Parts: sequence; structure tokens; C-alpha cells
Amino acid sequence: MYDELKKAVYDANMALPAHGLVTLTWGNVSGVDRDAGIMAIKPSGVEYSQMKPEDMVIVRLSDGEVIDSKLKPSSDTPTHLVLYRNFPEIGGVCHTHSRFATIFSQLGVGIPPLGTTHADYFYGEIPCTSAMTAIQIENDYEANTGEVIVNAFKERDCNSVPAVLVCEHGPFTWGNSAAKAVENAVVLEEVAFMAWHTLMLESPTGIFNNKMDQKLLDKHFLRKHGKNAYYGQ
Amino acid sequence: MYDELKKAVYDANMALPAHGLVTLTWGNVSGVDRDAGIMAIKPSGVEYSQMKPEDMVIVRLSDGEVIDSKLKPSSDTPTHLVLYRNFPEIGGVCHTHSRFATIFSQLGVGIPPLGTTHADYFYGEIPCTSAMTAIQIENDYEANTGEVIVNAFKERDCNSVPAVLVCEHGPFTWGNSAAKAVENAVVLEEVAFMAWHTLMLESPTGIFNNKMDQKLLDKHFLRKHGKNAYYGQ
Amino acid sequence: MYDELKKAVYDANMALPAHGLVTLTWGNVSGVDRDAGIMAIKPSGVEYSQMKPEDMVIVRLSDGEVIDSKLKPSSDTPTHLVLYRNFPEIGGVCHTHSRFATIFSQLGVGIPPLGTTHADYFYGEIPCTSAMTAIQIENDYEANTGEVIVNAFKERDCNSVPAVLVCEHGPFTWGNSAAKAVENAVVLEEVAFMAWHTLMLESPTGIFNNKMDQKLLDKHFLRKHGKNAYYGQ
Amino acid sequence: MYDELKKAVYDANMALPAHGLVTLTWGNVSGVDRDAGIMAIKPSGVEYSQMKPEDMVIVRLSDGEVIDSKLKPSSDTPTHLVLYRNFPEIGGVCHTHSRFATIFSQLGVGIPPLGTTHADYFYGEIPCTSAMTAIQIENDYEANTGEVIVNAFKERDCNSVPAVLVCEHGPFTWGNSAAKAVENAVVLEEVAFMAWHTLMLESPTGIFNNKMDQKLLDKHFLRKHGKNAYYGQ
Repeated sequence: MYDELKKAVYDANMALPAHGLVTLTWGNVSGVDRDAGIMAIKPSGVEYSQMKPEDMVIVRLSDGEVIDSKLKPSSDTPTHLVLYRNFPEIGGVCHTHSRFATIFSQLGVGIPPLGTTHADYFYGEIPCTSAMTAIQIENDYEANTGEVIVNAFKERDCNSVPAVLVCEHGPFTWGNSAAKAVENAVVLEEVAFMAWHTLMLESPTGIFNNKMDQKLLDKHFLRKHGKNAYYGQ
Repeated sequence: MYDELKKAVYDANMALPAHGLVTLTWGNVSGVDRDAGIMAIKPSGVEYSQMKPEDMVIVRLSDGEVIDSKLKPSSDTPTHLVLYRNFPEIGGVCHTHSRFATIFSQLGVGIPPLGTTHADYFYGEIPCTSAMTAIQIENDYEANTGEVIVNAFKERDCNSVPAVLVCEHGPFTWGNSAAKAVENAVVLEEVAFMAWHTLMLESPTGIFNNKMDQKLLDKHFLRKHGKNAYYGQ
Repeated sequence: MYDELKKAVYDANMALPAHGLVTLTWGNVSGVDRDAGIMAIKPSGVEYSQMKPEDMVIVRLSDGEVIDSKLKPSSDTPTHLVLYRNFPEIGGVCHTHSRFATIFSQLGVGIPPLGTTHADYFYGEIPCTSAMTAIQIENDYEANTGEVIVNAFKERDCNSVPAVLVCEHGPFTWGNSAAKAVENAVVLEEVAFMAWHTLMLESPTGIFNNKMDQKLLDKHFLRKHGKNAYYGQ
Repeated sequence: MYDELKKAVYDANMALPAHGLVTLTWGNVSGVDRDAGIMAIKPSGVEYSQMKPEDMVIVRLSDGEVIDSKLKPSSDTPTHLVLYRNFPEIGGVCHTHSRFATIFSQLGVGIPPLGTTHADYFYGEIPCTSAMTAIQIENDYEANTGEVIVNAFKERDCNSVPAVLVCEHGPFTWGNSAAKAVENAVVLEEVAFMAWHTLMLESPTGIFNNKMDQKLLDKHFLRKHGKNAYYGQ
């Protein structure tokens, strides 16, 4: 059952090591079937080279119940569920500890838009969540990780900035499918790499002010994503 | 038609992922047939692994009209056209978001010549364009990207410095063929990597002054490119 | 004799180049059979591509005597022996000059816990040993390298922080098997990379204080390693 | 003629791209036959993937005359010749623009010994040459490059520090064979990478003083290279 979704989620998970975004068994991707009310997600702690499409675990969106599986779902499952419940248009979620996105998470700061590479995918700053409180950590830690993410998007559109940095932890990305969530994780890491190196070397000209030109940000995001988009076939 | 040019441009585009210069579908290379008055360029948003030589799009140099193609040309096509019209000796143009060249673009500063690796290919600073104005961004953005590049070469020879950084965007390179434009993109990224790391670590001896010796720059550029060049077979 | 242990130690050594942790013949891994009172270790200065399982050298734990081998054991053998004698629960030891762990060793400072990637494997700071004295260097240097490591764990639990940086030298890691010692070396390098880049870029928000939240450190280490661990299958 | 030397020099050149030390056609390695009074060296500007053992060019040590070859030798040939004439015990020379060694060359500073990785191969600082004078650049530039290298070893032993950084240019390494010269180039790049990152992050403990302990340097160099060396088989 749900073979097509399991295959898509399996393929998206296997794209993580192919893109150099994960070490060992780290990282997880899920995809959702909103009509059926379920999501498929990577099993916990299984090696990528051993994983098969049928190992993806089906979890009910409403209550997190595992449906017909011998394997335990990723320990980050409650975080994914909170995101699907609060971001109604997304179809896939991806979590990694990719190097430079995690470095910004460890710093506790968002990634400012510094060039068109950022603007092509993210319409403004990629936010960092608030630090989690002792109570949030001790009870329902993984669900509360989802809550601090949702909180960071109270005054931000999750569809035009499909990525977040969880403070002292690492990035989550999403998209209209599991594959698109992974694509956004790939670009996030690239953007984070460039931002780190841009911020480290101060500009002697003063042109660089830790934020790119707003008109250029609009142009690049909207030529790819707006209703008058003209990029691609 | 134009099968030979399409094959050369296809090969040059495929060299981008082979050299680790691009992520996903980013980047594009074109080549020109000045007698026929056309250029061949990568189609927009197509995956490298799916691309075939016949997918290269033929565009008329004079007015940018697409000739006999089902695919749309790269959205950066107007930038390429402006470069061919203003730099009459070039035969190929390449655009990437390669990491360190893009980092200097995000800083809004050129890359100073700091050693013979730079001098072997670029006869002086690799300039960064001025920031684009709101008007340049809103109307004919891609053609205006070409205009700010041309402007950066008003008092510079585009043949002896075959590369530029577009402010807050990324690099363009060129050469007498599509293959040579890609070769220059490879070297630009190497030079940008070394310049970033040289500029970050200040020299305790004071020998390093953010610019290499002019005589050494002359020697290395001219032993490879001048009329008395003696490098190679 | 000891064919199974030799094979496990061989596999663990071969994982070092596979994970990009070693250059040339550098690095060595050992595994122990405490009932038999012996350890198996990589031979000294042999190329990874030439090595075979039967080349692993068997050494007696009590006195360091080589048993039935034409090859000399790694010159770091006395260090491994000291660790097995002082850390009674470990089953494998790994030594590399992996880049970022070695950089912290060269700085002479430990790696503070800065995020959950660290906390998932190391329950607190990864310590750096004291600098070795002239006497420790001149007599029994390799055994004394083990002694300064043991000394760094006088008030620390070697099972919950299975890694150390030897001052001006490089890292040693361990675990309940040779394979697990290598896994910890892989994670140590990842954590060291992220720590270096986090410490280099100061946080403008002041949230970042060169140490992560203690509650979050507890949560992540204990959900994987405590008696109520719920990570993995 | 000289088939064995040509094959050894060819293999050493092919090791450069295999170790990630060169871009495009950059870099060159030579080997010497002192009895025959000749050296074999890479041809100028030939692609590694196209090169064959018989393409190596034989050059007479005494006067630099090319012997029986259709191909031109590397443009750096006069530098190699000066090194063979002045360092009578060396059997191979290697030149690259490897990234971090070149970065120190661009800074115009030597690489201080900061840890045992350095000490295992280089017995003290890896020096940077003086900047070349206008006269040295304009006449016999490549031979004069050799002269500034020789000058840097007036009060240093070229056999115990088999590497140098040419100011604003890049590294040369050597050894008792072409293969050993390349091995030293591999280690030099690793040591330069670690030194750059160590020097960038200042030590809060003050243990780190931009130079490692002299006794530890002695110990590591001499256990591998001294007359009582005990490393390897």
C-alpha cells in the first residue's frame, strides 16, 4: 500500500547522500498523501546503503500512529507531523545536519539574502528559531521542535521561504513534494556556504551591507516563482 | 543545422558539472558563429544529465529571435547577446554561480592579482560591476546585466581579462570558443578561492600588499599570451 | 588464528580512506579480544591498497609482545595498549590526522559542544591533553602519549566522551569495537569542522556563547545513549 | 632510451591529478639520472589524460639541451635544472599550484611547524623565498626562480626540509625520486591546509604560540628519518 509514495520518499532520501548532505545514517525525508491522511518517512537509524523503498514507514497525520510497519519511523517524526499540520500546502519535509546550514544553526542566527543564488529560491532571510526552553526540551521535544519552527513563520510565508534553521540543531526544508524538499536542502547548503564566506570577508568598498538590494531580490525570486515567472521550460 | 556548433556548445556545458562548477541546473554556456550571425546556447532549466547536443537553442545575434527550436533558451540569453555584440573577438560565453567567484560578487569587489596563477590567465584585476539601478533591474534586466558588464570594460581590455563579477550575482567568463570560456571559468574559481584565503590571513611580514608585483604579472601573462609567448607546444 | 578479529580490524582500517580521514599510510585502528588478552592492529607504514586482513599484527595486551607476525605493528602500538589497559570497557581504538580534529590539536584546545550533532555522540567537551613534557617525549614517547590521554579523563567518563585531541598531534577515538571507534572518528571530524566555522564567525545576536544549552545536550545524548534511549531500531 | 626513468617520471606526473593537486595542465614533475647526466620532465602544456610515458622530455643537466624529442619540455625546466645542480642528493623535483601552499606563497610567508604532521616530513619551517627583483624577472626568469630557492636554503638543509614556497608563485618539492617529490607535495598541501586554519583561529588558552614544541618536532622527524628511525617496515 502507498507504494508510489514510498518509492518517491525513498528516492528523495537516497538523494541526500548523493548530494553529500549527510554523514552515516543522519538526515530524513518524508512525503505526504493528504487525501489518505498519511505520511511516509525514513525508518530510524537505518543505513542508506541497506534501505529499500518498502522500508519507508507510513504514519497517520492526525495522531502519529504507525500503520503496518515492522520498523520504527525516524525519531524526528513528530517534528514532520507538526509541519504538515501547520503548513497546509507543503508535500514533503527534509531534515539534515548539512555543514554550513548547521553552522548558522549553531550560531543561532538566520541567513540574510546576500545575492541572487539566495533570491532564486528564498524570498528573504532564512530564519533561525528561538532557542528552546527547558520545558520544551524535556516534554515532547520533537513535537516542540516543530512548534518553534511554526512560530518562526508567524509573520513569514512558509511557501516563499521553504527553509528554517533550528537553533543549536540544524536545518529543515520543505516543498510541494519530497523531491522538492531535498532540492531546497541542496540550495540551502550552497547559500549557507556562500553567506558564511561573504560575511567573513568584509568588503573594503562598503557596497556590501549584509543584505542584498531588495529590487534585485524581488526580480530573481519572481522571475522563477511569481505568476509571471519566465524561467525554465 | 549548426550541428557542429551545437555539439561544441553542448560539450562545453557538460564540462561545467564535470569541473564541479554548478549545482542542479545552474549555469549556461553559449558559442557563436559570427558568419552565420547566430549563437547556440543551453536551454532554460534542463537537467545536465538529460541534455542532448540537439537541445542547444539557436538564437539570432541581431535581434535575439529563436530559430527552429521547441525549447526556450536560457533566461540569461539577452546577457550573452550583449556581450557578443560589444566584445567582437569573443567566440564563447559562460555563466556560473561557482562558489568563490560568487562570494566576491556578493561582496561587490573585484579580485586583485595576488600571484602567478592569476597572472597566467588574467592580466590585472578581475573587476566587479557596479550595482544595478532599480530601473536597470525592472526593465530588460538580463540585457542590462550585459550592459553593466560592458561598462566595467570601458577602460579595460576584455581579451586580456576574460572574466567579470556581476555585483550581488555571480561570474561571467568568455574566450575565443565555448570551451575556452569554460576553461576561464575553471581558473577564475581557483583564483577566487586562493584570493579569498590570502586576503583572510594577514601577512605578518608586510610583504603582502593585496596586489602582486607588476613585473611578475607582466612576465607570467606575456609568457603565455603575448606575441613572444613560449608556453605550451 | 584470531582470523575474525583480524578481519574486523582490517575492515575498520579500510574504512578510514573510504571516509576521507587519512592521507597516504597515515592512521591506524586496533581491536581487542580481552578474553585472549590480545589486540590486533595495523602494520606500520603499509599502503592501504596493499593491505590484507592477515597483515594485521597480533600484540599481547600485558606486555606488548608481538605474536607470530612478520610485520612490525604500528609505531603507535604502545599508545593503544595504554588505552586498553586504562579504559576497561572499550573494544577498539582509532588514530588519524583528520584535518579539523588535528587543527584543534595544533591549537591545544578542546572542542566545546556547540550543537546537537556534537551532543548526539559526545556528552560534553572533547578534551585536549596537556602538552607533553621533555621527559615524556624523550623516553617511551608513544606510551606516554597514552598516559596524557588517560590523564585527561581523570574527571571525565571515557565511555560518554569517546574521543580526545593529543596536544600538537591529533585525535584518538574509541568505542566498543574497532568499527565503532572509526564511526566516532568520522563524527569527531564533522563536529570539529562545524565547531571551527562556528567559532570563526561571531554571532551578532549574542545568543551564541561558545557552549550549547545543557538541557539540549542532555536530551540529545540521552535519547541515543541513555537507558531510556529511543533512537534507532 | 631512458625508458625506465621516463616511466617513473610519467607515473609521478599522473599522481598529481590523482591526488587532487592540479587543475587543467598545471604542475610538472621531473626525475634525474645523475650517471647519464640527464633529467626527464613533463612536456609543456599537454593534458594529463593525453600524456604517455614516451612523451617525457629528456634534457641534459649540464646545459639544458633537449635530447631527441619532438615535444618542448615544461617551461619551468630551467628551475628544475638549477635545483639538481645545487642540491646534489635529490633525485626528483615537483612543482604545483596546490591551493593552500600557493596561498602561503601569495602571502609571502613560510609555514611554521605547528604539529606532528608537519614534523613527520619537514624538520622545521618550510621557507618562502624572497620576492624576485625586476632584473631577476626580466632575464632568465625560470633559472632565477631556481636561484631564489637555492638562496633560501643557504642556512637550511634541503634534505630535511624538502619543500619551498616561491614568493607570489607556488610550491616546489623534491626527494630522492620523482615519486618521493610528489609524496612531499601531497604532505605539504595537507600541512599548509592545517597551518592556515590553525593560524586563523587564535587559541584562547595561550598554549599555541605559532610554533610547536622543539623536542616534539625532533622526536617525530627523527623517529621517521634519523639514523635510529623505527617507523615503517
